[in-house]
Amino acid sequence: MDPAEFRRLGHELVDWVADYRAGIEDLPVMSRAQPGEIEALLPADPPVKGEGLADIVADLDRVVLPGITHWTHPGWFAYFPANTDLASVLADLVSSGLGAQGMNWQTSPAATEVENVVMEWLRRMLGLPDTFSGVIQDTASTATLCALLCAREWTAGYGQNRGGLQAEPHPLVVYASDQAHSSVRKAALLAGFGAENLRLIETDDAHALRIDLLEQAIEQDMADGRRPCALVAAVGTTATTALDPVEAAARTAQRHGLWLHVDAALAGTAMICPEERWMWQGIEHADSLVLNPHKWLGAGFDLSAYYVRDPEHLVRVMSTDPSYLRTAQDGVVRNLRDWGIPLGRRFRALKLWFVIREYGVEGLQERVRRDLANARWLQAQVDEAPDWQRMAPVPLQTVCLRHVPAELRGDETALTIHNLTIADAVNAAGRSYVTSAVLKGRQMIRVSIGAQATERRHVEGVWAELRAAAGEPAVVSGEPAAAGSPADA
Amino acid sequence: MDPAEFRRLGHELVDWVADYRAGIEDLPVMSRAQPGEIEALLPADPPVKGEGLADIVADLDRVVLPGITHWTHPGWFAYFPANTDLASVLADLVSSGLGAQGMNWQTSPAATEVENVVMEWLRRMLGLPDTFSGVIQDTASTATLCALLCAREWTAGYGQNRGGLQAEPHPLVVYASDQAHSSVRKAALLAGFGAENLRLIETDDAHALRIDLLEQAIEQDMADGRRPCALVAAVGTTATTALDPVEAAARTAQRHGLWLHVDAALAGTAMICPEERWMWQGIEHADSLVLNPHKWLGAGFDLSAYYVRDPEHLVRVMSTDPSYLRTAQDGVVRNLRDWGIPLGRRFRALKLWFVIREYGVEGLQERVRRDLANARWLQAQVDEAPDWQRMAPVPLQTVCLRHVPAELRGDETALTIHNLTIADAVNAAGRSYVTSAVLKGRQMIRVSIGAQATERRHVEGVWAELRAAAGEPAVVSGEPAAAGSPADA
Repeated sequence: MDPAEFRRLGHELVDWVADYRAGIEDLPVMSRAQPGEIEALLPADPPVKGEGLADIVADLDRVVLPGITHWTHPGWFAYFPANTDLASVLADLVSSGLGAQGMNWQTSPAATEVENVVMEWLRRMLGLPDTFSGVIQDTASTATLCALLCAREWTAGYGQNRGGLQAEPHPLVVYASDQAHSSVRKAALLAGFGAENLRLIETDDAHALRIDLLEQAIEQDMADGRRPCALVAAVGTTATTALDPVEAAARTAQRHGLWLHVDAALAGTAMICPEERWMWQGIEHADSLVLNPHKWLGAGFDLSAYYVRDPEHLVRVMSTDPSYLRTAQDGVVRNLRDWGIPLGRRFRALKLWFVIREYGVEGLQERVRRDLANARWLQAQVDEAPDWQRMAPVPLQTVCLRHVPAELRGDETALTIHNLTIADAVNAAGRSYVTSAVLKGRQMIRVSIGAQATERRHVEGVWAELRAAAGEPAVVSGEPAAAGSPADA
Repeated sequence: MDPAEFRRLGHELVDWVADYRAGIEDLPVMSRAQPGEIEALLPADPPVKGEGLADIVADLDRVVLPGITHWTHPGWFAYFPANTDLASVLADLVSSGLGAQGMNWQTSPAATEVENVVMEWLRRMLGLPDTFSGVIQDTASTATLCALLCAREWTAGYGQNRGGLQAEPHPLVVYASDQAHSSVRKAALLAGFGAENLRLIETDDAHALRIDLLEQAIEQDMADGRRPCALVAAVGTTATTALDPVEAAARTAQRHGLWLHVDAALAGTAMICPEERWMWQGIEHADSLVLNPHKWLGAGFDLSAYYVRDPEHLVRVMSTDPSYLRTAQDGVVRNLRDWGIPLGRRFRALKLWFVIREYGVEGLQERVRRDLANARWLQAQVDEAPDWQRMAPVPLQTVCLRHVPAELRGDETALTIHNLTIADAVNAAGRSYVTSAVLKGRQMIRVSIGAQATERRHVEGVWAELRAAAGEPAVVSGEPAAAGSPADA
């Protein structure tokens, strides 16, 4: 495509994206497409002759849009907020347009150096000490795999350069809580530890890691001739945003020589507000840490921030040095290909650079505080509503709840069906989208607040919809219910 | 950023990208930035107040552009072509603007279903049988890691669900040629095999895997109580585009129960031309295959195509099934989170969809044939020039050469310095960018042809520049030298 055609179509597509975002509230949050419906709209064979992209906007409306679940919708309460601020969309346009590869410093010095700078900016915003060095990864799953690989090689004294994991005399063991994200189990299995060497430790009533049971498990493994290797602590678990005690976890890790990886994928963003940093007290002792600016902070997917205390160790585990990748600057610059699994690297730092410049630290803090206040408001409503049960503390922006009417009390099967039905009804209506999940055997509804467009009225709206779906007196969406008023009881 | 501001700035940045691409030939291919120069242009602290992006175009010109090495420049002969056609830039704009996550089918059905369709399109374009199922990965490095993890679990009977690799009674062994890409070694080490269980088999004079030596190595390992696990064959090695014999490799793999992974990262694109498919004869026997549409084909980075013969095995190795990711459609759709390492997935299929529609199969074939012809032209020049040595066959678009003047013949140290000096001189001039590499101890210059903008005159240009840098009679760039004319001798 030549630049003139790109200019013409580019303007058209910028307008299409602007119109999409401006009108998003009128779309059903969750796509109503049925399996196979989108595929059926496309030919089975590729076009033999080029068709150009003259009809592309029509095809986006016809084929793509009906199959999109709208993550930036103000009624987005599912999974996690993934805000993809429009400033980061612009940054991605520049990144794609430049088509630069940041695998080596020399293959585009700006890609590496802007990344160095914005990862330092973010480190300062989070209040992390300068003993941490940061690098962008695609996802927290990948970052956690990197962490467990680094833990493995650290414990095994770089066994990868000898017989590998298969030559280890004592099985290496990984620890996390039973609320750890599925990516921790996946990473442990992919890294070769094996399910039998993964300990998912029971959690307390707040769904946080129990250090006493962790200590017991470590002692038992050592007595059995196994070798404790890594501990993954979550600051903000996926199901309920539970907070594992980082400081105590770090003490245990230090005592037994474990690598401490902290998964703050979602919660990390809240740490740009100094008053929230009690949640990861002790973070300076972590060996590695991941948080996702592509969630709540507003950078478009994919942009995970991975911080390590010993970048030389990371590089030693990940580096390759074939002659065709060597450059004159190798000794004095970072070659970020050696800081993760993939060789090729997109220029992703631009997204974070644009978002931080657009809002400034204070602008981003303000939005986080708005979302935290909205979550506390919903928490208060749930606590005051007699037939509703809050399933977990609300330190962050996720409220876990379920409806427990008197007639179903004690009947878990009936409660499961009842709450799945409520969530399905809300999601089918299309104004809001919540996630169903199971917490320690009990069905619940997760309301994850933090989409950029979500204001108090939308949180009031989803609460009214949940109550209506549960058969409670209708509360008209958009008409703010006074907190604690009799109507809520 | 609100949609109105996005619209205004979006138009401005589309124009900036269009101007950048239109004027790229006037820029030096390789960035002239010095280490630290870009970092020094940015403040150490993030802005406290939002600044907006009013000055962003000025900052792109001031900070970013001087630090960009221009991968889409017509004088790009380094590493590999990474064309990032402007149609794929538009696709990426749509993908970013939608901000959709394709981790589950339900989180945006179009992301999964458009990916299914375009991966089928690409499969048909490549002449691959329908026994292959495709999925998009970020890079060939990641795909190769997936392949070795799948090989490991296949040989070990899903040992990951028990004691992992550390419980395997016999060491598992991985085989590849000594010309295999560095990512093969990296993947083998990360997957836990250990360097001692990686065999890099010697290659023949054409730098292709020697099956006889492979067989010997396998027999020896079995005699030593090890367990052959995986074979990685390259169709188009990175250094010289050498072709491992896939058919013979497949026979060996089948005989000894090895997983066969084929790395056709660059060369795969050429297979859209039926007349080139002799290069990977036997490909239907591969267990897994990776090629990179983000290289020569024109899709923007990152878009690797990973094909497997048994997707259920891939899913069994990669799947996670926590309650918060379960959806009503799980039994009837693909959830692509289970087809690779990362959980989150960008809507990358749009890039391939746009590029194939823009050009059609014939348009893409035509470009590949142009580039192959350009490489054959350069090959002929080198072969006819008495003081130049071609270092490898040229089945594809990469010509490996070096200057061997009479007075330096036999002095490898002097030849190394001489050829590094030639490459540095060409790169410093800024009109072309070539890669220096070492092939079996001998310094060479790789001329990798295939940037979309590269026409015959640019190939003539780099050849003239190489000759001039070597002290040969000047050939004016842009004035086509008649192939085989006395001036070339």
